[in-house]
Amino acid sequence: MMDNRKLIAVIGGSRSSAKENKLAEEVGRELAKRGAVLVCGGLGGIMESACRGAASEGGLTIGILPGESRREANDYVQIPIVTGIGYARNVVVAKSSQAVIAIGGSYGTLTEIGYALQNGIPVISLGTWSLSRNGKTDKSVIPAKDAADAVSIAFEHISE
Amino acid sequence: MMDNRKLIAVIGGSRSSAKENKLAEEVGRELAKRGAVLVCGGLGGIMESACRGAASEGGLTIGILPGESRREANDYVQIPIVTGIGYARNVVVAKSSQAVIAIGGSYGTLTEIGYALQNGIPVISLGTWSLSRNGKTDKSVIPAKDAADAVSIAFEHISE
Amino acid sequence: MMDNRKLIAVIGGSRSSAKENKLAEEVGRELAKRGAVLVCGGLGGIMESACRGAASEGGLTIGILPGESRREANDYVQIPIVTGIGYARNVVVAKSSQAVIAIGGSYGTLTEIGYALQNGIPVISLGTWSLSRNGKTDKSVIPAKDAADAVSIAFEHISE
Amino acid sequence: MMDNRKLIAVIGGSRSSAKENKLAEEVGRELAKRGAVLVCGGLGGIMESACRGAASEGGLTIGILPGESRREANDYVQIPIVTGIGYARNVVVAKSSQAVIAIGGSYGTLTEIGYALQNGIPVISLGTWSLSRNGKTDKSVIPAKDAADAVSIAFEHISE
Repeated sequence: MMDNRKLIAVIGGSRSSAKENKLAEEVGRELAKRGAVLVCGGLGGIMESACRGAASEGGLTIGILPGESRREANDYVQIPIVTGIGYARNVVVAKSSQAVIAIGGSYGTLTEIGYALQNGIPVISLGTWSLSRNGKTDKSVIPAKDAADAVSIAFEHISE
Repeated sequence: MMDNRKLIAVIGGSRSSAKENKLAEEVGRELAKRGAVLVCGGLGGIMESACRGAASEGGLTIGILPGESRREANDYVQIPIVTGIGYARNVVVAKSSQAVIAIGGSYGTLTEIGYALQNGIPVISLGTWSLSRNGKTDKSVIPAKDAADAVSIAFEHISE
Repeated sequence: MMDNRKLIAVIGGSRSSAKENKLAEEVGRELAKRGAVLVCGGLGGIMESACRGAASEGGLTIGILPGESRREANDYVQIPIVTGIGYARNVVVAKSSQAVIAIGGSYGTLTEIGYALQNGIPVISLGTWSLSRNGKTDKSVIPAKDAADAVSIAFEHISE
Repeated sequence: MMDNRKLIAVIGGSRSSAKENKLAEEVGRELAKRGAVLVCGGLGGIMESACRGAASEGGLTIGILPGESRREANDYVQIPIVTGIGYARNVVVAKSSQAVIAIGGSYGTLTEIGYALQNGIPVISLGTWSLSRNGKTDKSVIPAKDAADAVSIAFEHISE
């Protein structure tokens, strides 16, 4: 690959709180400042806030859309990928990314976390799901303190 | 639809314990006795045990395979669906089912649980993932005591 | 696999002529008589006619649906597979089948033919697309005279 | 969308002739000169040649990969999208593009043409498949004389 920009996903719900949106925007800004390409699901809420943040710093934003039209992308997606495969596109968001930062989120976000972990892709949490099985907490998801911390952890955990 | 058989999934890992396999086989048998069609991912471990149980009672078994060949199906899959879409097929396992019974499982199972819950499909747990967010446990996954209990709960929760 | 029923697809448009529908119904009946499981896209037109034919002879019918709900299946689908991946499901119709019989059809049918041929799955034509490249006709699609002939060719070309 | 770059696909086989590769490289260069983002399947042959051409003019290249790893991308893909959905990714290549230029190609290319036409996306041919049904040639695929002509036709046919 002639390009060594990192692709990092921000995942989370299309319905999100003002606080979560602010966090997503900060993460987007921070990713752009550090030269990463932002990958996301391309829709509203967390995805839109992260794209807005990245775009405000001149970053490149990729939206991997579930539906049939590029028009469903939020206003800050620069490269809309129109999959037409519905929420099976969550696996594409995860696999295309070298690290995933999860902010809040619902069951769709849970599937993206599952796919990332299944593929050995680091997942950094800003208030997303905690997982346990048979009474034991799964420690795979890495908690972060704030947006800058999440982005730092993401870069540290990207394997070449 | 001219057919009113229920389609119920059994999900769980391809690497599973002897105890989990026994449970899966019992669930498969119970589903077949009650006339359900068994849906699963078609591979080994939990999937194979559930299919073996269902087949032993004359039940119909559907294996929704990730790979490129029907040959990857376990020996008890009667209808292999060859998707070729990799683990994106997990969404197909979930959506094709009217209820999902999860036994143990790893991150792939987690994605299937996420997809089922996203689509309002009841998920019954025999020792699978527990989920929480912001310190609050998600109560959507319904715990069952044993195989017969899991199947009873599945039938009760199927909406027409 | 403990089951040696053949899975054979009937593909074609959801908008089809009365003549094409009659042909599809005959193909469905013939497949059921010979013990094959009918695979199709699960919707109307050719798919519905083929399912009706198969069901009238007691055959098993599988509908691999593009959308989000089993309710979109035609009335003669016994096993609805709900993919939710849109027309990417065409690859699943092709790959799940050991032979494909194409009746008329439009661009969706063309993608199914392409996927079948890419995977070495025999395609039998009852008035479907003809293909050529650089002035040379592609001979991979096998023409049939009528419904019974199409089904005979399909069985002859299934590789074990 | 804040970005008004056009996304245009170049499709064709991973095994291609020297003449086809030269044509693909010219198309890639021409697209980059006119400010389009190149979309392709990310692998070798036509895809690699088109990416090399686009990159040589400073264009942005997106490779929508079928497999599980970004490492399968050719050396000139700048943004690898790792789908993991196999050749079902062909629908993503088609739908993500506002026009498709097809050079030679085999059955996979045929599926991409089918998906593009199904979605009303213009397809421009440099020696690709010709289609006919019931003795009538389908005129949907637009023939081009050479690389520059293909790119001009693509831009003319993009609908806003």
